[in-house]
Amino acid sequence: MRNHVRRRGLFGLGALLAAPLAIAAASAPAKTMAPLKVVILLYPGTTMLDWVGPYELLHRVPGIDLVLAAKTRDFYRSDSGMVVYQANALIRDIDRTDVLLVPGGGMGVRDVSNDAEVMGWVRRVDATSRITASVCTGALILARAGLLRGRPATTHWALQNMLGDQGATYVDERWVVNDKYWTSAGVSAGLDMTLALIGHLLGEAEAMKAQLKIQYDPKPPFHAGSWSTAPAAIREAVGAPMPGRS
Amino acid sequence: MRNHVRRRGLFGLGALLAAPLAIAAASAPAKTMAPLKVVILLYPGTTMLDWVGPYELLHRVPGIDLVLAAKTRDFYRSDSGMVVYQANALIRDIDRTDVLLVPGGGMGVRDVSNDAEVMGWVRRVDATSRITASVCTGALILARAGLLRGRPATTHWALQNMLGDQGATYVDERWVVNDKYWTSAGVSAGLDMTLALIGHLLGEAEAMKAQLKIQYDPKPPFHAGSWSTAPAAIREAVGAPMPGRS
Repeated sequence: MRNHVRRRGLFGLGALLAAPLAIAAASAPAKTMAPLKVVILLYPGTTMLDWVGPYELLHRVPGIDLVLAAKTRDFYRSDSGMVVYQANALIRDIDRTDVLLVPGGGMGVRDVSNDAEVMGWVRRVDATSRITASVCTGALILARAGLLRGRPATTHWALQNMLGDQGATYVDERWVVNDKYWTSAGVSAGLDMTLALIGHLLGEAEAMKAQLKIQYDPKPPFHAGSWSTAPAAIREAVGAPMPGRS
Repeated sequence: MRNHVRRRGLFGLGALLAAPLAIAAASAPAKTMAPLKVVILLYPGTTMLDWVGPYELLHRVPGIDLVLAAKTRDFYRSDSGMVVYQANALIRDIDRTDVLLVPGGGMGVRDVSNDAEVMGWVRRVDATSRITASVCTGALILARAGLLRGRPATTHWALQNMLGDQGATYVDERWVVNDKYWTSAGVSAGLDMTLALIGHLLGEAEAMKAQLKIQYDPKPPFHAGSWSTAPAAIREAVGAPMPGRS
């Protein structure tokens, strides 16, 4: 299809816009190997950026077979209620993966953590993974599955005490690696962790190519992105980390 | 609904996860004013992060009325073909906005730029806006609508020469402001521009609160996110900026 479009649009965008995609498809994987299977678990009520950030990097990497999997192929709504999305695979059809990545969300985290079918699948597929990862409160799902017991891990700063309730130890880092468990901080941190993860699995060049493709050269105009750098008035306005049970 | 959930889940996540949302809803806008209407234009083939980044900040800001609008409420597929999404408003029902934000995409940019109904709407609603903004190749849609003629602007580095074809001047910055036209660089740059935009419209405190909520404290493990910082071998592997027509 793309090759038929050669500056035929009214202003010739076709071939130029298609080219970066064609380049991505044509690049060979760094090493000759079977594709790396990466499964992102979707469920109702996810925080969109938690999984769209990693997705936007991962789907551009040759040699990665990316799957968005959920219990059903129903249309789900994001935590805000605004965005409708749909998985493109069913978890019951997936019995192994190289990487499992679990995004966070609001109330959806509680609901999915109480869903025996999804949590059983998380435990089973984790037993096959090279890396099991989370973004934001996705760590609370992994913790609830019993996978982070006794481990250092991270999550959204506001929910840090919930990790302790499940036997993990909260670490205030952008992402934390402990054995095969990679956890990242709130919402936007999945971008940084995913770059590191691509570098770890496929080499730094693949990670850097993906970074350049999404022009991830962040320049936030303010420095309020973490609890430790945000001005006190901003922290007070947003609210302190929630207490844990204990 | 949320107030009924008080540590009733098996591990008490309910109230804690609901709390950040409740805080967001309870915070008063910085000033007493009508809500600021922000319309994100969706179309088939968008790059997900282009609009999910801005959305993830904007929907958390009290005093912003965020709308995801498209020509139809059909289910569209992202540029990768992987993600299915749906607008929650129709452009024909929107005759004004405070902010219009246009994300980029692959072939979808060409197609929407050739859609007279959508492009006519972009011009009409732009005539009512305080700010008209773009992320990534969304700038090419604004340029095609004739809105960037004679202006400095930015877009994805790979398509920078296309801006010149439409009478704009490419600037290699994270985002560029010229009169009411705000354009940002590729894919991930919408996060930075949106923070600046919230700060401009509602004050720095509102922007910083949104930044803290999504924990946007970026720490990319590599420095390959822009054409000027990426190693030469990475630039060569990804490919040079596309030539323009002229």
